[in-house]
Formats: sequence, structure tokens, C-alpha cells
Amino acid sequence: MARINDNYLKLKAGYLFPEIGRRIKNFTEANPEAKVIRLGIGDVTRPLAPAVIEAFHRGIDDLTKVESFMGYGPEQGYDWLIDTIIDNCFAPRGVQLKRSEVFVSDGSKCDCGNILDIFDLGNRVAIGDPVYPVYNDTNVMVGRTGEADEQGHYEGVVYIPCTEENNFTPPIPAEKVDLIYLCFPNNPTGAVAGKEQLQQWVDYALANQAVILFDAAYEAFITDPAIPHSIYEIPGAEKCAIEFRSFSKTAGFTGVRCAFTVVPEALMGKTADGREVALNGLWNRRQATKFNGVSYPVQRAAQAVYSPEGWRQNQEIIAYYLENARLIREGLQAAGVTCFGGTNAPYIWLKTPGGSSSWDFFDRLLNECHVVGTPGSGFGPAGEGYFRLSAFGQRENVEEAVARIRKNLA
Amino acid sequence: MARINDNYLKLKAGYLFPEIGRRIKNFTEANPEAKVIRLGIGDVTRPLAPAVIEAFHRGIDDLTKVESFMGYGPEQGYDWLIDTIIDNCFAPRGVQLKRSEVFVSDGSKCDCGNILDIFDLGNRVAIGDPVYPVYNDTNVMVGRTGEADEQGHYEGVVYIPCTEENNFTPPIPAEKVDLIYLCFPNNPTGAVAGKEQLQQWVDYALANQAVILFDAAYEAFITDPAIPHSIYEIPGAEKCAIEFRSFSKTAGFTGVRCAFTVVPEALMGKTADGREVALNGLWNRRQATKFNGVSYPVQRAAQAVYSPEGWRQNQEIIAYYLENARLIREGLQAAGVTCFGGTNAPYIWLKTPGGSSSWDFFDRLLNECHVVGTPGSGFGPAGEGYFRLSAFGQRENVEEAVARIRKNLA
Repeated sequence: MARINDNYLKLKAGYLFPEIGRRIKNFTEANPEAKVIRLGIGDVTRPLAPAVIEAFHRGIDDLTKVESFMGYGPEQGYDWLIDTIIDNCFAPRGVQLKRSEVFVSDGSKCDCGNILDIFDLGNRVAIGDPVYPVYNDTNVMVGRTGEADEQGHYEGVVYIPCTEENNFTPPIPAEKVDLIYLCFPNNPTGAVAGKEQLQQWVDYALANQAVILFDAAYEAFITDPAIPHSIYEIPGAEKCAIEFRSFSKTAGFTGVRCAFTVVPEALMGKTADGREVALNGLWNRRQATKFNGVSYPVQRAAQAVYSPEGWRQNQEIIAYYLENARLIREGLQAAGVTCFGGTNAPYIWLKTPGGSSSWDFFDRLLNECHVVGTPGSGFGPAGEGYFRLSAFGQRENVEEAVARIRKNLA
Repeated sequence: MARINDNYLKLKAGYLFPEIGRRIKNFTEANPEAKVIRLGIGDVTRPLAPAVIEAFHRGIDDLTKVESFMGYGPEQGYDWLIDTIIDNCFAPRGVQLKRSEVFVSDGSKCDCGNILDIFDLGNRVAIGDPVYPVYNDTNVMVGRTGEADEQGHYEGVVYIPCTEENNFTPPIPAEKVDLIYLCFPNNPTGAVAGKEQLQQWVDYALANQAVILFDAAYEAFITDPAIPHSIYEIPGAEKCAIEFRSFSKTAGFTGVRCAFTVVPEALMGKTADGREVALNGLWNRRQATKFNGVSYPVQRAAQAVYSPEGWRQNQEIIAYYLENARLIREGLQAAGVTCFGGTNAPYIWLKTPGGSSSWDFFDRLLNECHVVGTPGSGFGPAGEGYFRLSAFGQRENVEEAVARIRKNLA
């Protein structure tokens, strides 16, 4: 009989969000009248910006005529979208990129997982705790880890605890690692990293010839001008970092699907016999062979995110979510809850009141307030005793959720 | 320094189509006045069906309003699309599938490559020759093979030659294998498989507890009612086969991106210690963790492919391409060229005149006729001396290409 990839059986539990979905389903089936407010999964709720909608429709219109029909596009994305990305996301911040260094894709989740394809299993990987579960799970699935211990840490991974003591910003590991996941603004804690801190990581990576996998999916929520949006704002990062970006949260594309990944040509890995090979070429080959590019109308819609109107309209949407974040943070703080994040980030990371466990607090919020959040322990054992609320809801729902929680905690 | 996946360095050459693209680029830069007709890559050229366009637009309109906005969808695809697929592609052919057995994705190329994630590297794999290059390349990249030999066969793979002698339909291998790629109607040869032949494969797979990876991307081009569209029309296939389907050729979605893969719940694999595990659950976990679903408006467009008008309109497009295939096949046959395929399939597989090599014939057609085809040897060493022409062009281009080739060969 065909042998399965046994590594899948090491995975501890269902992926976090399906488990949350299951509990919500059970609750709503038992309580069909309850108005459940979802501030759990980081999914946007505002409509697409009008300029984006318009470009999306125009993209479809191109497919109605022989002369403008678009079939297979470049697996890496169309040049006009890549140029728009470079000119708008990177050039204004002093980062020079070549077209060949930007790879348009259908999602950062995909890219974060798929990037492991081009690395040897022998690499030692460092992952924060708490962390976006995909980093852990994809390393398990590909076979880089051993079994999980009781608290859910997989053998062979170097975990970097992100705690209140270190302000939820991971300290540089004492040992040598080869791959390091960093996510700023952070999911789930909402922590951000300044230039000095990122420079320390780049220095460490260069000194140890490690590769930083930098997840910048939430960079659009940065309002503080001192905080870098891209790892490439840090000198030397082009020799040690891959960056993941997404239109999901920037422009409401969670259901539309577009993202991109930057693999600089200066970034090298080595073979078993010590030769240096550019990671850019490997990722290009991976994408050309196992991916067929992003939907053409979606790429047109993504391009419009950076048009003057599209940009202005999206900034309003981001400001809306950031105001939600402020309302949650300040509302819960007023109720005596210790909160982190929620500025320069769409997530509020709170300490569960009374020291209850993350899942107990989840069940309490769901059953008593009809509010869905995400248990901190779902992001790793160091997240136990914490809870994530997302600012992506509708204003009136956010206000009502905060009012319900305050009343419940009073 | 981070270690790369050395398996990538075993890949023989660039992926076939980029190499063709390079030669076309060189030619057109040197001959800017030449009107090049492309019958090489299997890319569609007809506009989307009006009913599909309409549904696609309506899908976008849903994203303009808070009440109808769609964010993250199920990674497996929306139930309404899955139900539409089951009701229209499978139920009428007597195949009963559950929702949980159909996984909507952004492309068959992706799924064909990604499916290897859930299998152990120790499985022995059988691949036809000639063949869609992705089957070979993805097995190399994942590390299942050794180095390539001089003719381009990778160590450890069981190759099944598809030749004129066996009518380009692969014979059952004498040895035991665990994974078998089958593609009918075939890319590149246009060969089709009847029920008896597929039953032999299913019997072999059941007897050897092997898994058939059945690529049915071109099933829409079958006009002969005796030929199965799905491997699941064969009794027992639900216990030994995964099927890949695509909207790319069925409905002109090469630039739109939608496909689906069927993993029956009855299909099992085994662990190292001999336990049986359902492959359905593994693929579900793979997709939930490393994929984020297909663009919502794209799924709406795909659903409309099966509406009464959408279906009728698409059948006209398919008939158009099949008429192209007839023109190519009969035109070249009249010029004395030996042709295969081109009925029940959009590809014509021809013997290069005068026994020239595939790439020599490619260069001759490009330089002398300004027609682009695909060298048979690009699909594997057994394709040497053959050449693939695609029926996906515009009618007037197809007619002109055939006329040019006939004149050149006269």
C-alpha cells in the first residue's frame, strides 16, 4: 500500500481556526437566537475599495474579447503589478528591488508554507511562541521536527518565547539557527519592531549565515513613522531575508487572494558540498513548476490598490480598523484588563482576567458574551493565559462586543 | 549558511515552456515583422462564456457591500460550487461523491505537485514517457529520485514508454509500484483510454495497493460516449485513485485559475508501522494549512460554467477547439504527416517529417513557418521524433499555420 507522509500524524490537533469554528457551530446550533460577534479569526469585513472594484471589473471585461483575452500569465505575476508593488511599497522607503525579486502569489499562508520546499530538512529553525500556527505546522508536515512534547513544542525546533517580560519581541537566540521566522507587526501579539531590533536580527543572520523569513502581512497598520515596514529597510537584509507581503489585510483581499514574496538575488544558500546557490532561482523554479500565477482580474484589482484613489480609499479602511483596535484596547483597559498591541497592529493581545486559561476564557466569552476571540494558547504554550481579539469587525459589532465584555467583567 | 534543497539541482533543464518562450523571444527580437502563430503551449484563446462573465461580475459586486462581503472562504471551496461540481460532473455519470471528497483549488498543476506532500518519499512512482513535465519535476524536487541519466530519466522512477507500438497508451508495469500517474485524454499525445483499459489499471492498483493519480484536465474534449470522463466510472477506483480536474481547458480559465481534486474517503495509505490512514484527511489537512481557498468571484464564475447557458456556451467553445484539432490533423495528414490524437483531445501528436529531432523541427517551424509548437522530446525521451500542436488557437491562425506548414513541407 502507498505509504503516507507520517509526519502529518505528529500534528498535535486540528489547525486552530477549524477548532474554533467547531465550537462556534456547536454553540450556535444550541443557541440559534444568540447574536454572535466574531472577533476571532483575522478576517476583514469592510467592502473592497471602489477603485479596486472598478479595476477588478475591468479585468474581467478584458476576458470577454479575443483581442484582450488573457490566458496563462507569468507564474511570477505580471510585470505591471510587480512594478506597481516595487514603486509603491519599496522605492518610497529607499528599498531598491528588481522585478525578478518579487513573486506574486495567491496568499502569504501558501508562500510561508511552500518556501520550505527550497530548504534542506537539516536546517535548524527558530520559531516564536506564541506564533502564527502555520510556521509550526508546515515544518512538522515537511518532516523537519520530531514529536510534540506535552506543551505542544516540537522536537528539533528552537522556540523563542515572546512574553510580557520581553515585551513580546523575541530575543536573539543564544544558539546558531539557520532559518528564523519573524512577524512584525506581530500576529498574534500586535508587537512591532523598531529599526534597532531588526538590525540586531539582520546582524545575527549575517553572522550565522541564517535566513530570516519575515512575515510583513500587517505592515499597512503601522502608523508610527519610526517603525520599518520592510525588513529591507535594514542594511544587509537583502543578503539574509525573504519577505512575505499580502493584500489580505492591506486591501481586504482575504476572499480575493493576492500576496507577494520577495526573494532578493543576493540571498544565498549552500549545497551539501558547500557551493553557494541563489535562493531566488530556486524559488523561481518552485513557482514555475508548482504554481500557475494569480487570477488575471485579481492582479488588476491588486494593481488598483496603489492607484491614488485606491490608496486613499484603502487608508480609510485601515484607519477604520485601527479605530476599532483603539476602542477594544481602551474599552478593555477601562475594565481593568491588561492589553498589548492594538496600535500599529490590528490585534489586541490581552491577559485573561483572573488568570483563567485561554480556552476557558474563549468558552466564557462565547457562552456569556456571545463574542468569539482566539485563545492565546492556540498560538503556542507561551500564549496560555492570553487571548487575541481582532479589530477587523464592523464598528457597531466591535462597540457591542466591548460593551458586553465590560458588563460581563464588571 | 542555510542549506538548500539539493534535489532542485538534479532538475535537467529549465521547465519546458520557459525554454520555448526564450527561443520565441530571440526569434521575434531578430524578426520583429514576422507574424508568429503560437500552437505550442496549451493555452486557450477564446473569451470566457457570457454566462461565466456575468457570474464573475456578480461575484465582485458581492464584495462592494458589507452585507454580502466575502472574506476567507473554506480552504476546500464553497459548498455551492462543490455541489454544482458533483451534480454536473459526476452524478450524471453514475459517480456518487460526498462534499468532503472534492477540494476546489487554483490549478491542477498546483494540485499535481502538492499531492506529493502527503506521501512518503519511499513510494515507488510510475510515470509515462512522454509526459506532462510537472509529474517528473515535482518528484525530483521533493527528493524521490536520484540523478537524471543521459536521456533525461531520473533514477528510481519507473518509466512507462508510450509509443506508436502501444498506441501511446501505457502498458501495465511488470513490477510493483505505489503511485501511478495517468492522464486521459493525454497531454501530450492526445491518446484516450476506454473502460477496459482503465479497469486494468484499477485492478492493478487494487492488487498492488497502489494509488493512481488520474489527471483528467482534458475530459471536456471527449465526444465519444464510450470513453469515461472520470476514473471513478470504473468500479473500485474510489479505493485507489485521486482525480485532478480543471476549469482551465473546460471553460477557458487558464488566466482565471480554478480546478478541483477528488480524494475519496475510501482511499487509504499506510504508515511506517502498517496502520491504514485515509488520504482524504491528510489532503484536507494539507490544504487547510498551506492553502487559503480560491478567489470568491472566481468560484462564482466556475459555478456558472454549469448553468444551462454557461454549459451550452462552453460546449460551443469546446466544439470550436475540436474543429481546430480536425483542421490541423487532417491538414497535416494531407501533407503526408503521421498524426495521432486530435479527436476527443485538443492535442495533435505528430511524427516529425524526415525523422528530424523534435527541437530541430521546432526551430524549423519557428524560423521557416513562424509557427510555434512543442518539441516532443520536451515531454520525455520517448517523445523524441514527435511534436505537439495545440488546437487552442484562433481559427484563422490555425488555418494559416496549417497552410504555412503544408507549403513548407510540400
